[in-house]
Amino acid sequence: MADEPRPVRIRIDLAYDGSGFSGWAAQPGRRTVEDVLGEALGRVLRLPGPVAPPRLTVAGRTDAGVHARGQVVHTDVPAAAAAGQEPRMVSRLAAVLPADVRVRAFGPAPSGFDARFSALWRRYSYRVCDDPARADPLRRHETLWSFRALDVAAMNEAALGCLGEHDFAAFCRRRQGATTIRTLHELGWRRDEDGIAVATVVADAFCHNMVRALAGALLAVGEGRRPPGWPAAVLAAGARDPAVRVVAPHGLCLEEVGYPPPGELAARAEQARRLRAATR
Amino acid sequence: MADEPRPVRIRIDLAYDGSGFSGWAAQPGRRTVEDVLGEALGRVLRLPGPVAPPRLTVAGRTDAGVHARGQVVHTDVPAAAAAGQEPRMVSRLAAVLPADVRVRAFGPAPSGFDARFSALWRRYSYRVCDDPARADPLRRHETLWSFRALDVAAMNEAALGCLGEHDFAAFCRRRQGATTIRTLHELGWRRDEDGIAVATVVADAFCHNMVRALAGALLAVGEGRRPPGWPAAVLAAGARDPAVRVVAPHGLCLEEVGYPPPGELAARAEQARRLRAATR
Repeated sequence: MADEPRPVRIRIDLAYDGSGFSGWAAQPGRRTVEDVLGEALGRVLRLPGPVAPPRLTVAGRTDAGVHARGQVVHTDVPAAAAAGQEPRMVSRLAAVLPADVRVRAFGPAPSGFDARFSALWRRYSYRVCDDPARADPLRRHETLWSFRALDVAAMNEAALGCLGEHDFAAFCRRRQGATTIRTLHELGWRRDEDGIAVATVVADAFCHNMVRALAGALLAVGEGRRPPGWPAAVLAAGARDPAVRVVAPHGLCLEEVGYPPPGELAARAEQARRLRAATR
Repeated sequence: MADEPRPVRIRIDLAYDGSGFSGWAAQPGRRTVEDVLGEALGRVLRLPGPVAPPRLTVAGRTDAGVHARGQVVHTDVPAAAAAGQEPRMVSRLAAVLPADVRVRAFGPAPSGFDARFSALWRRYSYRVCDDPARADPLRRHETLWSFRALDVAAMNEAALGCLGEHDFAAFCRRRQGATTIRTLHELGWRRDEDGIAVATVVADAFCHNMVRALAGALLAVGEGRRPPGWPAAVLAAGARDPAVRVVAPHGLCLEEVGYPPPGELAARAEQARRLRAATR
C-alpha cells in the first residue's frame, strides 16, 4: 500500500443558530453542530463517512442553545481531498448544510494553527430586551426577554470589579481537573440602535457556564436586586453561589475568536497546551 | 336594557414574525395575526370572545410569511373594558400572546384616527444576503439568501425610474376594482453593517405583491440579468411582465406607518376613503 499523503490542515469559520442543536459537541442520539458539520464535510470532500467523519477541533465548545457567528474549527484532511477545492467549498457546503449552519470561510490554515490552542481570546455577546415596547419577535431566538428595566450604568460599574485574571470558580460549573483561572479582558453593556442591552464579554478562554453566570450576576445588579459590588464579592468568595442565576442560553452568541499573527500561532498553541497540562 | 356606552377607539402598535402565519387577514382554518391578536384582546379585555372578537382595522394587510415591526391596528372597544387599562395592557397582552407576536404600544387613539385610512405612508424593508461569507443563520427567517453578488449602485439607478405617482399595475397582482395608482416616495438600497443589502420602500399605499415585485425587478438588475432601465420600462408598459419575479415573502417587513398630525387625521381618512370609492 502506498504511503498516506501528509494531511493538510483546514481552517473553517462558521455561524449557527443554536436553537435546534444540543450544543457543539457530538453526543449519541442528539443533533449537534459537530455532527452536522462533520457529515457535510465528509460529503463534499468525499471522505469515507459517516463511518469516519473528519475529526474537528473547535475554538469554543458552545452549550445547547448557544449561537455562533464567529466559531472557528480546524480539521486535517487528506491533501488530495482538499486540493484546489477551497474557493468553491463555501458554496458547496452551503448546498449540503441545513439552513441553521453556514460555513463562512474555508481554507488552508497557516502553519502551526490550532483552532482551540492557538486562540488568544474569545468574544461573546449576550442580548437582553428589557422593554416590551422594543420586543422584536424576529430576533426572539437570540434575545432574552426580561421586562424589568435594566440600569446599564450599574451593570458596567459591577463589571469593572470582575475584569482581569481571577479564579472564576464562583461562576463556573466545575469540570474535573479543568482550571477556572481565566483572564477577563472585557465585560461591558451598551444599548444597540434598537434599545437592546448587549453585553460584550472577552476572555482568554471561558470555563463552563461562565458567560451566562456572569451575565446573570450583572442582570441582578441591573434590575436593582443586588448592589454593584456584589458580582466582585461573589468572585472573591471563590465558590458557586446559588444566588447567581445562569441565564438562558439563547441570548448568548460566540461572535469572534482572536488569534496571534501567523508567526506566533505554534508558540501560542504550545503555551496553551502546557498551561492546560499544568492545571490538570 | 341600558344604552351601550359609546365605544373608545384604541391604537395598537405591533410586531410579528410572519413565518408561522398565513398573513394578517383572518381565514378559516389558518393561523393568522388578526385571529391571534383578536383572541388575545378578547381575553385581556374580557370581551365575549371567541364568538365576538373585536373587529380590527389594520394599516398594512401583510401576506403569508411577511413580517412586521411597525404594524398599526385600531379597534373600537366598550369604554368600560378599556378604562384605566392602557398602561398595563402591553404587559398583559405579552402574557397571553404567543412569542411571535408582540404588542409594543396600546392606548386611546386620537380623535379621527383610522389605522388604515388615516395613514399617509407605509415603509417596508427587504433584506438580501448576497455573500455566503456573510450569511447569518440567526437572521435567515428575515433575509433572502441569494448568493449572486448584487450591484447596489445599479439597483439604485434602476429604482430612480420608478419613483413618483404611477399606475403600478405592472407590479401588482390585480384585485377586482382596486386602484393600482400609487405614489412611490422612496425606493433605495444600502448595505447595513453586516453587509446585507437592505431596501427601503415607502409609498402612500401598496397594491398586492407590489413591494416584492419591485424588489424582484431590482434584484434582476443587481445581478446583471437586466439593464438599469428595465424596471422603469416594465412600469411604463403597464401590464404584468412574467419576467418580473415576485421575491420570497420572508425578506419583507412592514417597518413603519406614517400618520399626519392629530388635527389632520380625520380629514386624511376622509380623503383616502373618497379616493378609494372613486377608483372602485
